[in-house]
Amino acid sequence: MIIGANLPNMPWQDRPEGCKDPVWRYSNNPIVKRDQIPSANSIFNSAVVAKDGAFVGVFRSDDKCMEQHLFLAKSENAIDWDIEPDPLPLYNEKDECVGVACGYDPRVCWIEDRYYVTWCTQFEGYHGATIGVAYSYDFKKFYRLQDAFLPYNRNGVLFPKKINGKFMMFSRPSDNGHTPFGDMYLSESPDMEHWGYHHHVMNPTGWSWTKVGAGPIPIEIDEGWLLIFHGVGTTCNGMIYSIGAAILDKEQPWKVKYRCKPYILHPTEIYECVGDVPNVCFPCATLCDAETGRIAIYYGAADTVVALAFAQVDELVQYIKDNAM
Amino acid sequence: MIIGANLPNMPWQDRPEGCKDPVWRYSNNPIVKRDQIPSANSIFNSAVVAKDGAFVGVFRSDDKCMEQHLFLAKSENAIDWDIEPDPLPLYNEKDECVGVACGYDPRVCWIEDRYYVTWCTQFEGYHGATIGVAYSYDFKKFYRLQDAFLPYNRNGVLFPKKINGKFMMFSRPSDNGHTPFGDMYLSESPDMEHWGYHHHVMNPTGWSWTKVGAGPIPIEIDEGWLLIFHGVGTTCNGMIYSIGAAILDKEQPWKVKYRCKPYILHPTEIYECVGDVPNVCFPCATLCDAETGRIAIYYGAADTVVALAFAQVDELVQYIKDNAM
Amino acid sequence: MIIGANLPNMPWQDRPEGCKDPVWRYSNNPIVKRDQIPSANSIFNSAVVAKDGAFVGVFRSDDKCMEQHLFLAKSENAIDWDIEPDPLPLYNEKDECVGVACGYDPRVCWIEDRYYVTWCTQFEGYHGATIGVAYSYDFKKFYRLQDAFLPYNRNGVLFPKKINGKFMMFSRPSDNGHTPFGDMYLSESPDMEHWGYHHHVMNPTGWSWTKVGAGPIPIEIDEGWLLIFHGVGTTCNGMIYSIGAAILDKEQPWKVKYRCKPYILHPTEIYECVGDVPNVCFPCATLCDAETGRIAIYYGAADTVVALAFAQVDELVQYIKDNAM
Amino acid sequence: MIIGANLPNMPWQDRPEGCKDPVWRYSNNPIVKRDQIPSANSIFNSAVVAKDGAFVGVFRSDDKCMEQHLFLAKSENAIDWDIEPDPLPLYNEKDECVGVACGYDPRVCWIEDRYYVTWCTQFEGYHGATIGVAYSYDFKKFYRLQDAFLPYNRNGVLFPKKINGKFMMFSRPSDNGHTPFGDMYLSESPDMEHWGYHHHVMNPTGWSWTKVGAGPIPIEIDEGWLLIFHGVGTTCNGMIYSIGAAILDKEQPWKVKYRCKPYILHPTEIYECVGDVPNVCFPCATLCDAETGRIAIYYGAADTVVALAFAQVDELVQYIKDNAM
Amino acid sequence: MIIGANLPNMPWQDRPEGCKDPVWRYSNNPIVKRDQIPSANSIFNSAVVAKDGAFVGVFRSDDKCMEQHLFLAKSENAIDWDIEPDPLPLYNEKDECVGVACGYDPRVCWIEDRYYVTWCTQFEGYHGATIGVAYSYDFKKFYRLQDAFLPYNRNGVLFPKKINGKFMMFSRPSDNGHTPFGDMYLSESPDMEHWGYHHHVMNPTGWSWTKVGAGPIPIEIDEGWLLIFHGVGTTCNGMIYSIGAAILDKEQPWKVKYRCKPYILHPTEIYECVGDVPNVCFPCATLCDAETGRIAIYYGAADTVVALAFAQVDELVQYIKDNAM
Amino acid sequence: MIIGANLPNMPWQDRPEGCKDPVWRYSNNPIVKRDQIPSANSIFNSAVVAKDGAFVGVFRSDDKCMEQHLFLAKSENAIDWDIEPDPLPLYNEKDECVGVACGYDPRVCWIEDRYYVTWCTQFEGYHGATIGVAYSYDFKKFYRLQDAFLPYNRNGVLFPKKINGKFMMFSRPSDNGHTPFGDMYLSESPDMEHWGYHHHVMNPTGWSWTKVGAGPIPIEIDEGWLLIFHGVGTTCNGMIYSIGAAILDKEQPWKVKYRCKPYILHPTEIYECVGDVPNVCFPCATLCDAETGRIAIYYGAADTVVALAFAQVDELVQYIKDNAM
Repeated sequence: MIIGANLPNMPWQDRPEGCKDPVWRYSNNPIVKRDQIPSANSIFNSAVVAKDGAFVGVFRSDDKCMEQHLFLAKSENAIDWDIEPDPLPLYNEKDECVGVACGYDPRVCWIEDRYYVTWCTQFEGYHGATIGVAYSYDFKKFYRLQDAFLPYNRNGVLFPKKINGKFMMFSRPSDNGHTPFGDMYLSESPDMEHWGYHHHVMNPTGWSWTKVGAGPIPIEIDEGWLLIFHGVGTTCNGMIYSIGAAILDKEQPWKVKYRCKPYILHPTEIYECVGDVPNVCFPCATLCDAETGRIAIYYGAADTVVALAFAQVDELVQYIKDNAM
Repeated sequence: MIIGANLPNMPWQDRPEGCKDPVWRYSNNPIVKRDQIPSANSIFNSAVVAKDGAFVGVFRSDDKCMEQHLFLAKSENAIDWDIEPDPLPLYNEKDECVGVACGYDPRVCWIEDRYYVTWCTQFEGYHGATIGVAYSYDFKKFYRLQDAFLPYNRNGVLFPKKINGKFMMFSRPSDNGHTPFGDMYLSESPDMEHWGYHHHVMNPTGWSWTKVGAGPIPIEIDEGWLLIFHGVGTTCNGMIYSIGAAILDKEQPWKVKYRCKPYILHPTEIYECVGDVPNVCFPCATLCDAETGRIAIYYGAADTVVALAFAQVDELVQYIKDNAM
Repeated sequence: MIIGANLPNMPWQDRPEGCKDPVWRYSNNPIVKRDQIPSANSIFNSAVVAKDGAFVGVFRSDDKCMEQHLFLAKSENAIDWDIEPDPLPLYNEKDECVGVACGYDPRVCWIEDRYYVTWCTQFEGYHGATIGVAYSYDFKKFYRLQDAFLPYNRNGVLFPKKINGKFMMFSRPSDNGHTPFGDMYLSESPDMEHWGYHHHVMNPTGWSWTKVGAGPIPIEIDEGWLLIFHGVGTTCNGMIYSIGAAILDKEQPWKVKYRCKPYILHPTEIYECVGDVPNVCFPCATLCDAETGRIAIYYGAADTVVALAFAQVDELVQYIKDNAM
Repeated sequence: MIIGANLPNMPWQDRPEGCKDPVWRYSNNPIVKRDQIPSANSIFNSAVVAKDGAFVGVFRSDDKCMEQHLFLAKSENAIDWDIEPDPLPLYNEKDECVGVACGYDPRVCWIEDRYYVTWCTQFEGYHGATIGVAYSYDFKKFYRLQDAFLPYNRNGVLFPKKINGKFMMFSRPSDNGHTPFGDMYLSESPDMEHWGYHHHVMNPTGWSWTKVGAGPIPIEIDEGWLLIFHGVGTTCNGMIYSIGAAILDKEQPWKVKYRCKPYILHPTEIYECVGDVPNVCFPCATLCDAETGRIAIYYGAADTVVALAFAQVDELVQYIKDNAM
Repeated sequence: MIIGANLPNMPWQDRPEGCKDPVWRYSNNPIVKRDQIPSANSIFNSAVVAKDGAFVGVFRSDDKCMEQHLFLAKSENAIDWDIEPDPLPLYNEKDECVGVACGYDPRVCWIEDRYYVTWCTQFEGYHGATIGVAYSYDFKKFYRLQDAFLPYNRNGVLFPKKINGKFMMFSRPSDNGHTPFGDMYLSESPDMEHWGYHHHVMNPTGWSWTKVGAGPIPIEIDEGWLLIFHGVGTTCNGMIYSIGAAILDKEQPWKVKYRCKPYILHPTEIYECVGDVPNVCFPCATLCDAETGRIAIYYGAADTVVALAFAQVDELVQYIKDNAM
Repeated sequence: MIIGANLPNMPWQDRPEGCKDPVWRYSNNPIVKRDQIPSANSIFNSAVVAKDGAFVGVFRSDDKCMEQHLFLAKSENAIDWDIEPDPLPLYNEKDECVGVACGYDPRVCWIEDRYYVTWCTQFEGYHGATIGVAYSYDFKKFYRLQDAFLPYNRNGVLFPKKINGKFMMFSRPSDNGHTPFGDMYLSESPDMEHWGYHHHVMNPTGWSWTKVGAGPIPIEIDEGWLLIFHGVGTTCNGMIYSIGAAILDKEQPWKVKYRCKPYILHPTEIYECVGDVPNVCFPCATLCDAETGRIAIYYGAADTVVALAFAQVDELVQYIKDNAM
């Protein structure tokens, strides 16, 4: 059902007995603690991919100055991560270093011949957050391209292949603060630097009545694209970030075939409810095994740590369809 | 001192040794967990009454779509609750089903010959929250009446008998959001459908400087009505909902004889401080035994679970008088 | 087409040459200046009715302390008004004076055997604005009844006769400030003191995207009720109050048969655009002549003065139908 | 000094005696009144160009429903305008009509072989304002292209020729309301549909401390591009829109060579200070005569009418340099 | 009744016939237009004093960059003012120039042997508005002292003599924006540089429900100090600044003997209602003639121009007493 | 390196093995629980000093009415505190009791011959928070002086000796609410009652981007003053209070020699992240031993309890220098 590679060494735990939810947590969460590298105030909202039989990742760590950078990491089992102590340097196409990767909420996507990293960049000439883009052939040296969009924008998420000959990127237009609104859009590019044909994908509604944005790279399945996303509701004591799911049309992925009405994960554990930003589950990556249909979801918890959850693709797709809006 | 029925099988625990507070918590809180029914995101702010030697209740559960409904429940001991999996259907007086009970924060009150449920209803033709009213003779079939007031209103709480020939209902006029203000009012009705003679009862002040609204059905005592209510203060990190108490005049219950200056319960336990809305204790019902003067207070904690606390009526009344504003 | 009395001595000016608008202004506006009585800061948002061959009115004047009171006035021609220098005293049904009429935005309605005044009352025991009600048999002595609704409410406007045996009153539920929202509702009462059966009538939309509330007493016409109302939009420099029109069902007047999509009057004249609150046209009363179909609309301008405009009922009704939403 | 065509029949008045300002108003302002077409509430913020010895324009008119559309207009003298009564229809490249042009604040720019109209479009599938683009070869039939950017964006203004082989467009990223912030950016496109290489041009500062956005199409001069723009400051009574000027680098027009520290026009006349939005001067177009260096600036006043002002290019450029930040 | 010098050449107009107000406007207002000096955007909120048989003043002018400076001015008749084209330079006590006087809303006060200027200073090392202080023996060279208070503060107004051996200064503590609150305080200083004994004088109430601050230097009269002040109310369309009056205790001037309940001047004229900030009358200075009891009040109008009004001291004092709160 | 007394009996724990942070927590935190005295809702943000071989303190406790008072306490080991059950009474210099100490966030400072207490006082004649000052020779009877500054002000912190003959006090000017801004200032006084020469010390930046205020009494060290302070950042779910450090110039202590870019303590423990105000570490006092260079930091946690942390002066100073901005 998943169209993609097999990944038999991805992390996995079977569904706990008695649990009927479509997604369940790893029993030893969080997998990355807030202080795993010396400079870190917190490590969360991070992206991982399989590479050469092992795993690599781009991690968000806010340091004790509350500055936000991206860090490379590697792991044999995708659970225990070895994170670089220094932020990721970026290069231009003349091979000159143009500084380290400042910003937050990275995603990583393999397209055709290279890895692309997209993240939310800020405070660099522009006067607001927007989507940074860089690529690497080897996950060692990263070349920075033009930022994708005008500010204010967040949550740029690429598709793992071109559609109709174009790159496709989700984003969530924002404002210059904590943004009490936000729809998910999809844009097209012939060259990864000029973007147009901006399609509206999803509006905030139901449990995600405040804002909604893409999460991990969409997973190609038989009947379209499986999208895991974050949605936000607001109480008198602040925002709650939960995780939702939908299935998009394969050729016109701005068309939502099924949007799951209930959330699929919500902050209930102490490491999700207590931390720098209470009540946050924010998904940034998945690992999938096409053969077994296993999905591992990596999500930031409470803007403080990295946690892991699991789903079985057939069950999750069925759940989305059974509970579609 | 309590004027009412005996209820020897109500839940009870003696005051813990060393505790000098007028109200103390049940040692095994919360009594209802957030996921007790499969669809539930949370179960809280719920009302219970004694019936035929056992107990019935109307429970608020927000589902995983964050939609809010009322659910019937029953219990032998008023601690372990068997909650219906589906929301409560409502009927009109022609015995036609008019949908399920959408909304939140129910209260249940027996008056004369039937049970009345009042709750905060929303999103149904009206463009704002107001007070829904339904009645049942048997706690099986509920007939919906006209909503009591114009929006925006919340926390409609009935008196257990007519006063001067009229039904009496508290409410807390609100706005269309999280409402950073709110006084408690009392209104009169000859017929439970037309309301007038709106009396101001209590303003926000002291620990409840933001807003104040009625809680459980008032308890008739020798010298008036014992009112347990919620009050809200606001810090830089949001609102805190605590529980207060007052004694009202018996014939003119909009007159406050004694208003207890300190709160009687405040969020301090982990299940009150951590959850969908941190720092909330929200009382919706009591059970009382006239003979022993025992009171069991049911309150929602952190907008997530149901908890239970106890008081002895004579001590609580004395505490209110000793600490009156 | 107007169902009602003839009023041949009402003010009138023919439509100016070249004008194609459904409503046109009196050429000598404003008819009441801000300082017509010595204590006045401003005189505006006032109501007039015909009486005994002449005219009487209840005027809003804010004094130089910015306190808001109601004042009686009389006029031979309904243009030149003689306003009492002191606020209107109110009596209870024991004929005791209970103070003067504090508040704003009065309307006057003759029903069956007496005049009713409704207005927005504030700062009197209640802790927010709501609808005051008083009646008079002779327009000399006014008896105050219970306030109609719980706060926060404004723009209470009665129907000139009972419908299905009940009094009917519009209102616009509000909050405790300048209220950036507001729908029009209609409530029923058997006795002018207890109100229920609250119907939603109109939501803010189009040019009145912020809030919408009833204006003058509705005018009975062949095919229902002609309602003139105020609507409010918001720019980066504040609110604009314009005047709209609709036709309501005769028996179920909460049903809108036609709602005119364009406004019928908008602040464009200097006395409407400049004053204590710039850009306000706020209608509070009409005079009508059934035989000729003439309508005179009295409206407050810029929260500072009283102005007058005219319409022909058949043209206005046709305009509403031709431009219905 | 102006690089462009001669336009001897453009409107002109010499500087009034005694006036030392770099820009002066037309003595018969406003040139277009708010009610010049029957449906109009207001006509303002409009763009004009020379064509075939006469003049054409795209005008913004808000109708009495407060809906915003674009309207074609023509004029012999560029002062007295004949505005079409119906909104401008748009076509797709299959020559099918795709509706009328909804939105506001149009600009018109001739590039190479056709006229481009850009405007702020809203409420059309997207959930926020962004930049609409259409073109016409004859100013009769307009073909709509993809919207240029993701929402929320306003004030899209094209350059009159490609630079380094690319189309260039200013814009001012915004939020979903009245936007209390805003910088001017410049983006590049190979094809007028995909945009990238977003350059920051100007930040709010000085008299325009709230936001700043491009105005008319930039004027090519010997030493770069003469840019007239709007800037906004905020007082306790709302926003003030004034007009500023700058000179940009010719090849890298996101580089500001001189930014004039004082404004060049500010709301002081009654038609600029009183209207639907008081205190607004908003420039959308210029006409220029290369031979004489005359510039006529068309600007909306008070979001209500169209006004005209004049400048001499050499004086204005000198003023900018003498008063550069 | 006024304790002070005679000033027979001060400006004066008798009360207009029919006028019963305690204060009346000069018939040729405004006396200073917005563009009287070439650099000016506006000239308003300015202070004047008598000197050597003529008059001098410190004027606020905001230039076309919207930068705020103080300017010296002189006049033979106190109506026609000759304003310096350049801002006032300030010196330290070593006679070094320390820059020009940036800021706004100056007051001028003669105490013992010199003139003191106080004004609202901003953006100079401090990160918020506070009270600047300078003195001059000859009104030519001004020596700057330490700022009086911590930010955020505005409207520092001195008493014309020491009381109990100390300098006395009013101020209105503020925030870092347009400040929707504000009480008037009075502070004491032994040396004009260290301040303590901060007394609360007046709170916002009635027509000045938002904030209240001192205006001109208090006028010594037989029974205390006559204080003219500004007060601010807020409508849905912004703030209104009006002028009030009070009488303070002579020895303990923080004690209010009489506070006039109505305002004494309110924006009603076009030059007060239309301008950069509509609806502002802001008094900064008076001239008085002890013999005749004449008072001329200088006030800024609409944050744009300077206007003049008159009062007779005995009438004004009587009006305050007759209308005291 | 610390210039001051030896205090060998101060609390101490060595740095935990493996810990590399400059500050570490006491293993048995919190040292004072929220309910240690019967009336208390919470006890936090409190100040301690050594006295006569033991320790005394002034503690903040909010009672169950949420009223804030100061309480005296004493301790043999500075960990186990015996807190008075009743608030601290204050006297005037005539030895008359003037009430108990209302307010919050006390600091205690020995200067020359007596102890000074400074705290944030409110609701006492003044209409906003400011800095209360009292002194005691014996820590038994406290004499109240004039409040130091005009409202709105918080976090008044004295230096332990006069500098250039003047008392020195930090403060953080505020507004009338939760204050989303705030710089640290330093003021001078000849007499502890009149204050002037207000110097700006630190602005919000980096992790403390919202506001920044002084913490404990500065510690004199060889090269200046070691200042521990609180700084506040804001997320979508509220404010986070962390602890920072800096070194100030000895003679001109408003000059910051080194400001440590990272925080030195941040809320990560459950008692810091959960409570009445989640995510707060707020330092109010230190104890130091000059000989060993040991520092014990007392800080409030979550506005609920008192906690303790430790540092070694040489390491902390080095850390500040190594990580200076």
